[in-house]
Amino acid sequence: MRTLISGGTVVNSSGSLEADVLVDGEKIVAIGARGSEVSLGWSEGADRIIDATGRLVVPGGIDGHTHMEMPFGGTFAIDTFESGTIAAAWGGTTSIIDFAIQSKGASLREGFESWSEKAAGSCAIDYGFHMIVSDVNESSLKEMDQLVDEGITSFKLFMAYPGVFYSTDGEILQAMQRAAGNGATIMMHAENGIAIDVLVAQALARGESDPRFHGLTRPSLLEGEATHRAIQLAKVAGAPLYIVHLSASEALDEVVRARDAGGNVFAETCPQYLFLSEADLAREGFEGAKYVCSPPLRSVEHSHDLWRGLRTNDLSVVSTDHCPFCFKEQKELGRGDFSKIPNGLPGVEHRMDLIFQGVVSGQLSVERWVEITSTTPARMFGLFPRKGVIAPGADGDIVIYDPAATQTISAATHHMAADYSAYEGMTLTGRVESVLSRGTVVIEEGAFFGRPGHGCFLERSTNQYLV
Amino acid sequence: MRTLISGGTVVNSSGSLEADVLVDGEKIVAIGARGSEVSLGWSEGADRIIDATGRLVVPGGIDGHTHMEMPFGGTFAIDTFESGTIAAAWGGTTSIIDFAIQSKGASLREGFESWSEKAAGSCAIDYGFHMIVSDVNESSLKEMDQLVDEGITSFKLFMAYPGVFYSTDGEILQAMQRAAGNGATIMMHAENGIAIDVLVAQALARGESDPRFHGLTRPSLLEGEATHRAIQLAKVAGAPLYIVHLSASEALDEVVRARDAGGNVFAETCPQYLFLSEADLAREGFEGAKYVCSPPLRSVEHSHDLWRGLRTNDLSVVSTDHCPFCFKEQKELGRGDFSKIPNGLPGVEHRMDLIFQGVVSGQLSVERWVEITSTTPARMFGLFPRKGVIAPGADGDIVIYDPAATQTISAATHHMAADYSAYEGMTLTGRVESVLSRGTVVIEEGAFFGRPGHGCFLERSTNQYLV
Amino acid sequence: MRTLISGGTVVNSSGSLEADVLVDGEKIVAIGARGSEVSLGWSEGADRIIDATGRLVVPGGIDGHTHMEMPFGGTFAIDTFESGTIAAAWGGTTSIIDFAIQSKGASLREGFESWSEKAAGSCAIDYGFHMIVSDVNESSLKEMDQLVDEGITSFKLFMAYPGVFYSTDGEILQAMQRAAGNGATIMMHAENGIAIDVLVAQALARGESDPRFHGLTRPSLLEGEATHRAIQLAKVAGAPLYIVHLSASEALDEVVRARDAGGNVFAETCPQYLFLSEADLAREGFEGAKYVCSPPLRSVEHSHDLWRGLRTNDLSVVSTDHCPFCFKEQKELGRGDFSKIPNGLPGVEHRMDLIFQGVVSGQLSVERWVEITSTTPARMFGLFPRKGVIAPGADGDIVIYDPAATQTISAATHHMAADYSAYEGMTLTGRVESVLSRGTVVIEEGAFFGRPGHGCFLERSTNQYLV
Amino acid sequence: MRTLISGGTVVNSSGSLEADVLVDGEKIVAIGARGSEVSLGWSEGADRIIDATGRLVVPGGIDGHTHMEMPFGGTFAIDTFESGTIAAAWGGTTSIIDFAIQSKGASLREGFESWSEKAAGSCAIDYGFHMIVSDVNESSLKEMDQLVDEGITSFKLFMAYPGVFYSTDGEILQAMQRAAGNGATIMMHAENGIAIDVLVAQALARGESDPRFHGLTRPSLLEGEATHRAIQLAKVAGAPLYIVHLSASEALDEVVRARDAGGNVFAETCPQYLFLSEADLAREGFEGAKYVCSPPLRSVEHSHDLWRGLRTNDLSVVSTDHCPFCFKEQKELGRGDFSKIPNGLPGVEHRMDLIFQGVVSGQLSVERWVEITSTTPARMFGLFPRKGVIAPGADGDIVIYDPAATQTISAATHHMAADYSAYEGMTLTGRVESVLSRGTVVIEEGAFFGRPGHGCFLERSTNQYLV
Repeated sequence: MRTLISGGTVVNSSGSLEADVLVDGEKIVAIGARGSEVSLGWSEGADRIIDATGRLVVPGGIDGHTHMEMPFGGTFAIDTFESGTIAAAWGGTTSIIDFAIQSKGASLREGFESWSEKAAGSCAIDYGFHMIVSDVNESSLKEMDQLVDEGITSFKLFMAYPGVFYSTDGEILQAMQRAAGNGATIMMHAENGIAIDVLVAQALARGESDPRFHGLTRPSLLEGEATHRAIQLAKVAGAPLYIVHLSASEALDEVVRARDAGGNVFAETCPQYLFLSEADLAREGFEGAKYVCSPPLRSVEHSHDLWRGLRTNDLSVVSTDHCPFCFKEQKELGRGDFSKIPNGLPGVEHRMDLIFQGVVSGQLSVERWVEITSTTPARMFGLFPRKGVIAPGADGDIVIYDPAATQTISAATHHMAADYSAYEGMTLTGRVESVLSRGTVVIEEGAFFGRPGHGCFLERSTNQYLV
Repeated sequence: MRTLISGGTVVNSSGSLEADVLVDGEKIVAIGARGSEVSLGWSEGADRIIDATGRLVVPGGIDGHTHMEMPFGGTFAIDTFESGTIAAAWGGTTSIIDFAIQSKGASLREGFESWSEKAAGSCAIDYGFHMIVSDVNESSLKEMDQLVDEGITSFKLFMAYPGVFYSTDGEILQAMQRAAGNGATIMMHAENGIAIDVLVAQALARGESDPRFHGLTRPSLLEGEATHRAIQLAKVAGAPLYIVHLSASEALDEVVRARDAGGNVFAETCPQYLFLSEADLAREGFEGAKYVCSPPLRSVEHSHDLWRGLRTNDLSVVSTDHCPFCFKEQKELGRGDFSKIPNGLPGVEHRMDLIFQGVVSGQLSVERWVEITSTTPARMFGLFPRKGVIAPGADGDIVIYDPAATQTISAATHHMAADYSAYEGMTLTGRVESVLSRGTVVIEEGAFFGRPGHGCFLERSTNQYLV
Repeated sequence: MRTLISGGTVVNSSGSLEADVLVDGEKIVAIGARGSEVSLGWSEGADRIIDATGRLVVPGGIDGHTHMEMPFGGTFAIDTFESGTIAAAWGGTTSIIDFAIQSKGASLREGFESWSEKAAGSCAIDYGFHMIVSDVNESSLKEMDQLVDEGITSFKLFMAYPGVFYSTDGEILQAMQRAAGNGATIMMHAENGIAIDVLVAQALARGESDPRFHGLTRPSLLEGEATHRAIQLAKVAGAPLYIVHLSASEALDEVVRARDAGGNVFAETCPQYLFLSEADLAREGFEGAKYVCSPPLRSVEHSHDLWRGLRTNDLSVVSTDHCPFCFKEQKELGRGDFSKIPNGLPGVEHRMDLIFQGVVSGQLSVERWVEITSTTPARMFGLFPRKGVIAPGADGDIVIYDPAATQTISAATHHMAADYSAYEGMTLTGRVESVLSRGTVVIEEGAFFGRPGHGCFLERSTNQYLV
Repeated sequence: MRTLISGGTVVNSSGSLEADVLVDGEKIVAIGARGSEVSLGWSEGADRIIDATGRLVVPGGIDGHTHMEMPFGGTFAIDTFESGTIAAAWGGTTSIIDFAIQSKGASLREGFESWSEKAAGSCAIDYGFHMIVSDVNESSLKEMDQLVDEGITSFKLFMAYPGVFYSTDGEILQAMQRAAGNGATIMMHAENGIAIDVLVAQALARGESDPRFHGLTRPSLLEGEATHRAIQLAKVAGAPLYIVHLSASEALDEVVRARDAGGNVFAETCPQYLFLSEADLAREGFEGAKYVCSPPLRSVEHSHDLWRGLRTNDLSVVSTDHCPFCFKEQKELGRGDFSKIPNGLPGVEHRMDLIFQGVVSGQLSVERWVEITSTTPARMFGLFPRKGVIAPGADGDIVIYDPAATQTISAATHHMAADYSAYEGMTLTGRVESVLSRGTVVIEEGAFFGRPGHGCFLERSTNQYLV
């Protein structure tokens, strides 16, 4: 099966070209200059020709932070690997990296196997795993080495959620030392959960139970603090560090300091921190519960700084932290006690479109949009050049994007399982037109042509930004 | 004429691929995955096949800062556009951007035409011009707009050299305001020449006439000062700024501050600031004169910081500031008075090789090497995607690089006109094997196959890093 | 003549005491613990007893920056040394340091003598001089040494006002080198006047002639720039530096950087930058002219930062830059052309009271109030322990201050010659009750008992903050 | 009993005076100008006249950080309150503030009472207590309020020593919140003890047991980290923070950042961090054990930065952290396992003399010497103006200091109980000549005239630097 994508503007992170793309089987096999004799000949042998005139031809998005079917506070994130990856495909994302979870007392392998089972045969697009390490000990430290060999090259630790995922600074240091040895990247949820839990208990004791207190008890200072601490521990250990879902100016400042000094410190932010704010968390009634995630939504000044960080590459990636709970029955678990509201927002479907608004508003170049949504995650998580680029030899993960179309986000039309959208009613410029996953068209003319099980497990190499 | 480069590792700034490159006429027309059916067919139609097995296939280097035949202190830089561009080609550089000079009292156009005449028909590789503005006035400000339309999109001003190139802060501000309007980038020689001239006169009055006093009278603090001043003036004007030949930690610190804040501030450094030091300037006898350039060589601590800046992208480009004078009769003009030593070093030939040592030592990735020597200058100076990338539609400016070969630099073997090498005896790993300029092989098997006049004038668009 | 001040709280910069103060002749001769046998005996020998119960007994204020009778743009500051020093005394200031001016082409001595003549026999309180150096040359540099021996230990240079007071960076560097040798402090008007003059000319050419354009053409970035430049030049020269009338956050940031690094860099601000803003400059009609001074009034965010700087000691002194012009006939010279409005505000009378509001609002301790208005200027300008402290051996310059009284500022009641007050109608807490100058009561019960000519010339030693 | 100290130079933090000091009973009752009629009369009524000609008359030193008789690792600091305070007196220190310790499971009061018993009747000079809080809980938090009322106004917490003094971030936050309410200052031992314990265990497991590994397992990064964390927690709580025994540049940087922003963050360093280094810790054999304290001695670059911090007032106080253990039998407990070496150095006797070397070398003014050793601790710990100043009404705690005498430090001659001196053989300029404690001469002509039990308990007010 040969597919020719002709007439479009091929956008890679390093620049844009007027060029045609030839896909053969699962791979891109050639890129040809528009109208050159060579590429003109390609249409003959093609089984299918996609006219991309007036469209951007971009590498499929890579969402480096999703939580499909994740257990949280007695319930589960509502998207399965099937529903979640289908929604991702609709939004131009052709790879996700989800988080396999080690349970306290269990091995890393048990967690990996459990998550592999859930995903295998279910995913509509390719998928890989980071590993959440909940129980740092001699045995789990050793397992890290082996998992790196099997393509799990990043391990997430938590400075928040005492009693659940929380690791002490000593445990963190040991995991980082191990990563320094085996080349893995440590991912960090950087909030001082020990201090936060004090603030939460005090707020509840004062009767402050509404969703907005979720934000007020997780001050940005404590995200900045934890980010600084994680960076220093990583320096002591000599390990690369990746801060997940950075939301606060104070945290960004610490990342900037570390990067200015040449440290291997990286960070991602998420669309919710760029587009939503504490005002949403304070919506009337219990509406704010829809916006409960951790770190919490901040003031707009923080968003302003985050956009700047995306431009300066102090923020390298936009992931979604997709972790959807329905408002009904799930978010509602926290009525009367904000600390019981499941943390997380649905988002995997709209990442590419939302960040494209930065291009529309002139804050980001179109190349930078590709970089932070696809190329950098590919290199950061060891998938390049298989993923993250339109280039010969790469997987045929391609999005045909219409930069001029408009759309309005709504739970009524989205493909995620959540019963609400955090962006309900927002009108966007730019829209995914067609999507290929490993050479197969999975989205076209407003229809899904893919299938659960098409997605393959991605064995990842280590972080490609480390020299 | 069709050339197929097969078997090599194609390295672009965004990543490396195992792929074959097909050049047709002056352009790259296609890139094909290694061994794919499509590209396998290309060898049939090829007039010439270059076997790049075990070699890197990289975009031709772009040296954004050269001064061929430049008049300085009563003499001229010893390389003509012919000799200089041939030397550049030997070193894997396929484009230079030289500086046309407006004389005091003359128009920009006169300067541009004068330099165009020198270059036309002489260059072995492609060439463009920045414009040195020595006389900011109503008329020259207006000329800037027109030159931008003609492909001269960057204008250099000097905070040093009072009475020669020096512009006052008021003149600089006006030129920056104009640039803010027409999209040009202001390039700045950032040293406080007014204060430096006081220090120079004082040193000479004390009888301190040896070359090393060239360095001591141009303290790094005064480069930091001027860099800060240029940045603030650019902020007031709203213009993009590019600091040339940054040599000092203090200057780098200012660039870092500006870039952290999201400013359109860019900087280049040069190989001499990375590999040489004030110790060279203090060599016995008059040997130090060979190392006189401005800003002067600094201590090794500065070099250390510059390497870090290259990693963090606070330094975006490595250019050479190639401005060669022979030791005999030229550098010797300054015996007994260091201020009369012509400022400048030969360097255009070895930039790619020298910076590749950063790859060898593990400080830079091979992709970053391509980025700072080719891709970024292309985007910074408005040449992308014609230059700076191996991609269909781009010019066939290609270097086949042997990463394992070794060589020793010597004036006895270099192709520049200078009678000495600043890097004499230095042994390097990595060597240019073949070079194509717009599809034509100009260097191969240790011989030059190009010709003066092959090089074309490059009309440049404005800085492509501005969103 | 012996005066006993009993019952008050003696406030020095280092702390407050319940103590009695015995003044004999011009000097404080002893301080005694309240109610101790020793001091109880003092009332017997006293010619006069001042009951300071419930009052603060503080060292007389020192205003380190006044311009009495200064020529500016064809007119003169309206306060003579007589009227100005009487107004100062009313406000609790018992020493001023005015600026003697070297004219272009004249010697420093001529300037010093000219100003000495104006002041001698006229001043109601003690006075000293800084020297404005308008013409840096071999001769004036040599004169600096001699003036230091005669008690003129600080020299002011201007980075603004080209053609009038402006010195080039080369001239500044030379004056700083001289100061490094003779121990003098260089005071700097830090605004980039060369760039500002371009902005002014452009504004006027656009017909922007109202007072508010005075502010818009002197952006805070250009004060920050000049401050940074002055600091770097001082570092090169090894000289102490004192930034006068700092008004901008950007300038403060530079002072903070320098001080954090341990540099001998000091700065003053003025009440107008703490209490007034660009909104005053933009008052309707030509009212804004009353608020024209340089640097200009800024936005309230800057004021906020300046208050913080006073707390952190990054701003060490509050002076007034008292340079009063009447609205009628003087400020009016600039109708239709803001650049012709004489620069300056009346202020010498209300400095102590205005800064006391920082105590009232809880931003400053009462000791810090004494420090920034008296003790630090005394040490900075070489007058300690003769001035700036309530201590035996010090001059009897004492203010009895009622911290609870209130007053309303008005031109109708102030003692300065200007026909308006920049603080008209402002109600303050705290008021000067009595003032002694060298042991003589000059203000008491709302009356002036001093006389012109009482004030002595103060020979000053060099900056006492330099270790 | 009246004592007149005549002929000396009275040095207070705010400046130096030629003045005579009259002490009556326990108090200074008057200060008179040298040779004034008033003070001339004082000699008549004096019981004793001390001729201080050529001497400095300075307020008695205040050592804000001592640990007399402190239990540590199964042994006790070897100086009792008696021997330690006598040694302090010899060195010109007339007040100490020691640390009462709450044991885990016990109340604050029990700790306070236990320490009060040890000190009562034993001290040769005045003494106060900070309180170490080892067990933060509802009850101990409440006790804090009451202790503040009783003159214990500072509470120390530990981020190091898990299982002993360590508090979690949540406990720290709660203690800080309480301090924000009752006005107390939180003192912090800022090292990340959790991470350090991992490094210690790893080192021991590798057989790295020598004293120098004490330093290598407590990297300065982890002091910087904890300092940053403490500052952020204090910001969240709104409490003042005082970092004890700051030793590392990274920690100083954090204090500078906080103070530049106007935060109520203070820090002390100790003589050992200014004069000794990691080279001492690495002395041959087991000699290094003499230099084991926490934080550990650092490289000389850190010392250099600390001296700068003392000049810039980013370090406000020099205390000793006097916690002496004999080499024999005490330090030797850690042979073969550095983690078992009791932490601490003898130092209370030489603080004033050692810091005076900063005056001798020109790094500090004599006023700044008084400030950091006496005046600032007095204000910081709520003792001013009773202590910390030569002023009427203050306690007669006075040191007559000979700035020209020399001495050599040796365990053979010192008065502390430790069997070694960390400064053995160091020759110093400057020496304590006489010492008065509350009006009584305790040291004179090389003899001790005081007595155990002379010292009184000091009820302290809260931090006087808080506006």
